[in-house]
Amino acid sequence: MSSRYSLDVLFYPRNVAIVGATRNPAKPAYYITENLVRLGFTGKTYPINPNASEILGLKCYPSLKDVPDDVDLVISLVPAPATLNVVKECAEKGVKGIVVIAGGFSEGGEVGEELEKKISEILRKTGMRLLGPNTLSPINPSNNLIVSFRGMKELKKGSLAFCFQSGMYEPKLGWIFNGLHLGVSKIIDIGNKLDVNEVDVLEYLSKDDETKVIALHIENIKGDSRRFMELLKETVKKKPVIIIKGGRTSMGAKASLTHTGSLSGGSYTIFEAALKQAGAIHAQTLEEFFDFAKVFEFLKPPAGNRVAIITLSGGEGVIAVDCCEENGFKLAELKKETVERLRKVYPPWNIPSNPFDMGPCIEFHGNAKVCKTALDSISRDENVDCMVIQLPAFVPPPELDEVVKSFLRLKEAGKPAVIWRATMGRQEDRIVEELERNYIPVYPSVERAVKALGKLYKYKV
Amino acid sequence: MSSRYSLDVLFYPRNVAIVGATRNPAKPAYYITENLVRLGFTGKTYPINPNASEILGLKCYPSLKDVPDDVDLVISLVPAPATLNVVKECAEKGVKGIVVIAGGFSEGGEVGEELEKKISEILRKTGMRLLGPNTLSPINPSNNLIVSFRGMKELKKGSLAFCFQSGMYEPKLGWIFNGLHLGVSKIIDIGNKLDVNEVDVLEYLSKDDETKVIALHIENIKGDSRRFMELLKETVKKKPVIIIKGGRTSMGAKASLTHTGSLSGGSYTIFEAALKQAGAIHAQTLEEFFDFAKVFEFLKPPAGNRVAIITLSGGEGVIAVDCCEENGFKLAELKKETVERLRKVYPPWNIPSNPFDMGPCIEFHGNAKVCKTALDSISRDENVDCMVIQLPAFVPPPELDEVVKSFLRLKEAGKPAVIWRATMGRQEDRIVEELERNYIPVYPSVERAVKALGKLYKYKV
Repeated sequence: MSSRYSLDVLFYPRNVAIVGATRNPAKPAYYITENLVRLGFTGKTYPINPNASEILGLKCYPSLKDVPDDVDLVISLVPAPATLNVVKECAEKGVKGIVVIAGGFSEGGEVGEELEKKISEILRKTGMRLLGPNTLSPINPSNNLIVSFRGMKELKKGSLAFCFQSGMYEPKLGWIFNGLHLGVSKIIDIGNKLDVNEVDVLEYLSKDDETKVIALHIENIKGDSRRFMELLKETVKKKPVIIIKGGRTSMGAKASLTHTGSLSGGSYTIFEAALKQAGAIHAQTLEEFFDFAKVFEFLKPPAGNRVAIITLSGGEGVIAVDCCEENGFKLAELKKETVERLRKVYPPWNIPSNPFDMGPCIEFHGNAKVCKTALDSISRDENVDCMVIQLPAFVPPPELDEVVKSFLRLKEAGKPAVIWRATMGRQEDRIVEELERNYIPVYPSVERAVKALGKLYKYKV
Repeated sequence: MSSRYSLDVLFYPRNVAIVGATRNPAKPAYYITENLVRLGFTGKTYPINPNASEILGLKCYPSLKDVPDDVDLVISLVPAPATLNVVKECAEKGVKGIVVIAGGFSEGGEVGEELEKKISEILRKTGMRLLGPNTLSPINPSNNLIVSFRGMKELKKGSLAFCFQSGMYEPKLGWIFNGLHLGVSKIIDIGNKLDVNEVDVLEYLSKDDETKVIALHIENIKGDSRRFMELLKETVKKKPVIIIKGGRTSMGAKASLTHTGSLSGGSYTIFEAALKQAGAIHAQTLEEFFDFAKVFEFLKPPAGNRVAIITLSGGEGVIAVDCCEENGFKLAELKKETVERLRKVYPPWNIPSNPFDMGPCIEFHGNAKVCKTALDSISRDENVDCMVIQLPAFVPPPELDEVVKSFLRLKEAGKPAVIWRATMGRQEDRIVEELERNYIPVYPSVERAVKALGKLYKYKV
């Protein structure tokens, strides 16, 4: 914790005190303590509540000063007006970091602004770091530190760090780990950015060895924006940074002011140009934000832009080809040997080999044989840099294992492959889970799969 | 069936003969007969197979000429080379329409092209209509006529007609009815367009009383393209037409040639401009295609562009506002009475009323009360033309019914409302199903919800 910008106290505290801890499971705040206990936070947890002697098996203390240990991090659950006192107590105790969950500060009007000012003074004097107010984080799967109102089943450790301007990821938390199957190094929500802001976070994450990919949701730069852009340029040389901007429009910028108390500044066009110049990966929608995050967490960039497409339908194959051209790819010219291998599973007439339409082939040769032949031979073709593949739907159970195995073997070829769902529905959920557990990303549509692959390709070009 | 363009024989045959019917459930072709029997096609079904006396309880005939009745529609399941004979038999029998499922015609090379020519001659002489080859349709939920290799559980009747260039919708069929909850009037896949093409289909659907919305996937215009554009202009005056184009790029156009045997012609920019001029709704991706189809099937266009936004998070609210501005909406200025009503569920500080952030309100007043207050008061505000609302996630069961009821009451206000999922996952599936059964559309993200609403608004402007 030597650097001004180190946020280690937020992610690696030796212990955590929860001021305002509750043993009432009907209150969302209950899950702040419950998650730490159930998921097994590797540090110590000290619940603070004058009306309880024990919470979830943990000894409870009447106040912070009664904790018989130095305290690294305090999570404050008290309402806005009571927060100033908590901060004062933290200062007295020599606490290193505070997470303030309450809303109703600068985003709520003058009284809240005044409160923030008073807290700032204390931070300046003591050097304590403060996350929030109006935050619901941090999360660190490597030590099972999690600040959340949701009872989480599991945290999947990985190399992707998220920084959000607000708690909007909170309802999506279960989905991020279990539906989207992302592996996470850190999640932080900077809220009102009274102290810790996006510049601190980017600096910290750029140096964090556990983080290989950074995904930022920002509305405005509250820190030094020149420093932010410099940092961004330095960081993208080492790790991809994906950015989504809220408050792009004048209406949106105005709305931004009212929820975390700071105006989203400057022209979006200028911001967009600056991001591009810095080499950041720009997401236009939340779906893109998570789509891109997944492709960068799961895959290494392809060596070139020669793509092979494998589909279940000629019509969707045409759309896939369109997407590939629009995203900077060209169709790989398969080697003669590959085409000869494919020919063994053709229907009784000749069909093209790229895009390769499995549909009519499957009618004549079955799912297992066609998938095996297509995926094995095309993934090993030296003229192919990357692959876009539609997942077969409605595979009869006797063939299913073989089909899944063929997809899993894609990893052996060492080339990035993105998969898309045939049904757009939930038909393939079980298979998708198995593929994604093995870092083979599956997207709901071919357009999204190819766009993500395109971002991955362009990152290194 | 008086008009040259009537496709009644494809959608409303009094009876259907299936040439090549099979009683082997391991073959996809089995489901052609099985679906008709199980779903209860309201006409008669005559399986044709010289080696069976009965299939699925239906008397089976050795050949078409043995059927003791005039036959309206023949579904041919035989391979390409045997199809010419089937067409000849149909001509002898005086059949009115033929559906040819086999592939391997013009898309498979010269032999197939020759076959198509010979079949065309017979059609010209007899006036028989032919759908395909290389098709897997039609579907008509009003009489449970369905040509599909998938054993379908149910068909939901509605007012949306789909026309596809190819069978690419086939894996998505279950999802269209059960996951996407669309109600369908007709589905047709025109395949190689030997006879019936997109011009015939558009003409037919424009006059079809059961069809209120038309969604077309096209790669090229095989009929008279001037006629197509004229028809489009006429049709959009009566019903919205949503179009997605495959073969937008030069690479895609080339791929199009090889799967249904016709080259995707002309420049995409020109095509796009022509669509716009004709007033069609243009989808850029398959997700948009289905998103737009849903909004038009479910809702009536709003009277104006004054939108109210209700969210669970300030950050996602800002993104929602951005989307609204980018899609032609402005934030409604709520009436004083509405703001007073909302104030009752505010957190202890003041918050904006549009976008209305339910998140902090729910912490203090619970889901049921906040949803009821927000949805009831905002939907009845005269300054509001339409609404974009985030669906609460993780509602405790005792409150769940009340929350769902508040959403269902949105219909009473008579203004279009689009909903988006808080989790982006499957958390809210049960609620979504109930809302969509009541024609309240739910989208995976706010961007997609607002974009769909924007298309709906612009249709009448």
